[in-house]
Amino acid sequence: MRQFTRREVCSGVGLIASPCLLSSCLSEKIISSPDKGKESDILWAYAPLDPDTTAERAYKYYYEGHCMYGVFKSIVSQLAELKGQPYDSFPFYMMRYGAGGVAGWGSLCGGLNGGAAVAGLFTKTEEQRRLLIDELFRWYEKTELPLYVPKKAKLKMEMARSVSNSILCHTSVSKWCKASGYRAFSDQHLERCACLTADMAKMTVEILNSNFQRQFIAAHSLSEEAKTCNFCHAKGGEREDSVTKMNCSACHFALGSGHGK
Amino acid sequence: MRQFTRREVCSGVGLIASPCLLSSCLSEKIISSPDKGKESDILWAYAPLDPDTTAERAYKYYYEGHCMYGVFKSIVSQLAELKGQPYDSFPFYMMRYGAGGVAGWGSLCGGLNGGAAVAGLFTKTEEQRRLLIDELFRWYEKTELPLYVPKKAKLKMEMARSVSNSILCHTSVSKWCKASGYRAFSDQHLERCACLTADMAKMTVEILNSNFQRQFIAAHSLSEEAKTCNFCHAKGGEREDSVTKMNCSACHFALGSGHGK
Repeated sequence: MRQFTRREVCSGVGLIASPCLLSSCLSEKIISSPDKGKESDILWAYAPLDPDTTAERAYKYYYEGHCMYGVFKSIVSQLAELKGQPYDSFPFYMMRYGAGGVAGWGSLCGGLNGGAAVAGLFTKTEEQRRLLIDELFRWYEKTELPLYVPKKAKLKMEMARSVSNSILCHTSVSKWCKASGYRAFSDQHLERCACLTADMAKMTVEILNSNFQRQFIAAHSLSEEAKTCNFCHAKGGEREDSVTKMNCSACHFALGSGHGK
Repeated sequence: MRQFTRREVCSGVGLIASPCLLSSCLSEKIISSPDKGKESDILWAYAPLDPDTTAERAYKYYYEGHCMYGVFKSIVSQLAELKGQPYDSFPFYMMRYGAGGVAGWGSLCGGLNGGAAVAGLFTKTEEQRRLLIDELFRWYEKTELPLYVPKKAKLKMEMARSVSNSILCHTSVSKWCKASGYRAFSDQHLERCACLTADMAKMTVEILNSNFQRQFIAAHSLSEEAKTCNFCHAKGGEREDSVTKMNCSACHFALGSGHGK
């Protein structure tokens, strides 16, 4: 495989055109930590990718290793093909663990876990990482999904859409089952998650591209509901006993009528 | 760095003693997938590690990059030091994304996310991966934690313990805040999560060691409560509209009295 030089990486050879590519090469630096200088602490550089190509790959990879694997591999494999090491040394198969909210536990949606891992791989600071992950997660909570329509669908079907109001696989799947009438673990459910995987990979790349080009502006903010709850429960609140940015009503659907008064 | 030969890896040189080390060298094979043969699909071999040493590392690494990073790096960095490539090529800094249930979202506990990623890295089949992750997650849900007492504590304090009844960071932290009287985001909360990170790393290694030695037997099973709910909602049930193995009452604390009748 042809190795790209640093100049080629910075000028975006083989990647989509961008007027601001040079500006973000600053990100390819050593992270300051007690292990400063070790190979495992050198930040891997991102370079803009085509969102639609990424979505197509993610759809295909879903059927190879599920949701987390699909999102992560669809993005990092493109850089591996373009740039070789260190990207192609990544053990992609590892990401199969995120399937079904991690090994079927229904916790964090695997596609979001994969997208967040990609953001972790290509961001330097905690603040930057949080900004990008917040955008991906809030978009997922609020958007009627899936949007992606595969060119060659594994399963021909009328695809129902639903809003999850949650980043958890369990809630997201149950909401879609209700909207579509299909059962969990059915072929239709898998096809829905394959399309959703494509959506999340595409959104992750769109966020990373705009961040790379220093044009990232968050389009989604904390829900009004979560703001109300966080007023007392989050950092600085009267109770200060909670760590979360999730929509509260996805679980706390039956608080006592006197709560918060 | 000294590179270990395949024979040394298989005989456990530099690692803890094990009568069954040879038996698991079978796991170092190509995973069957459409990418069969690519470097990124070769299973990385595990070799038994000392659980207490791992716990100490995880406690230290927590203060470097939080919970997911702490668990993952405490395990894989030992193999990197013993065996070099490919372990030391892993971009450990990426795992910082899991902090606080992924970037402070309070979803899956970062230590569990890190432990599950390690299980994903060192297991070959979906069934094997699920068995090991199920054990780690169920132990976490049911056990009064943290257990670890650091040799050189970052913060001297009387450590309260709590049972999370959940794998979610948000629930786990709030339960501990209630049990301890300390606030979320306090130094005491961070010290608690550092000790918990050590516990999860130790448990992950104990599970992986026994799996490596072909002596793994699950000690924890699905809760009776979850079994009751899954009777209708999980695969094969009348409703079949849910994907989860989490304890249901951690979120569904106020179901109508007629539910399930």
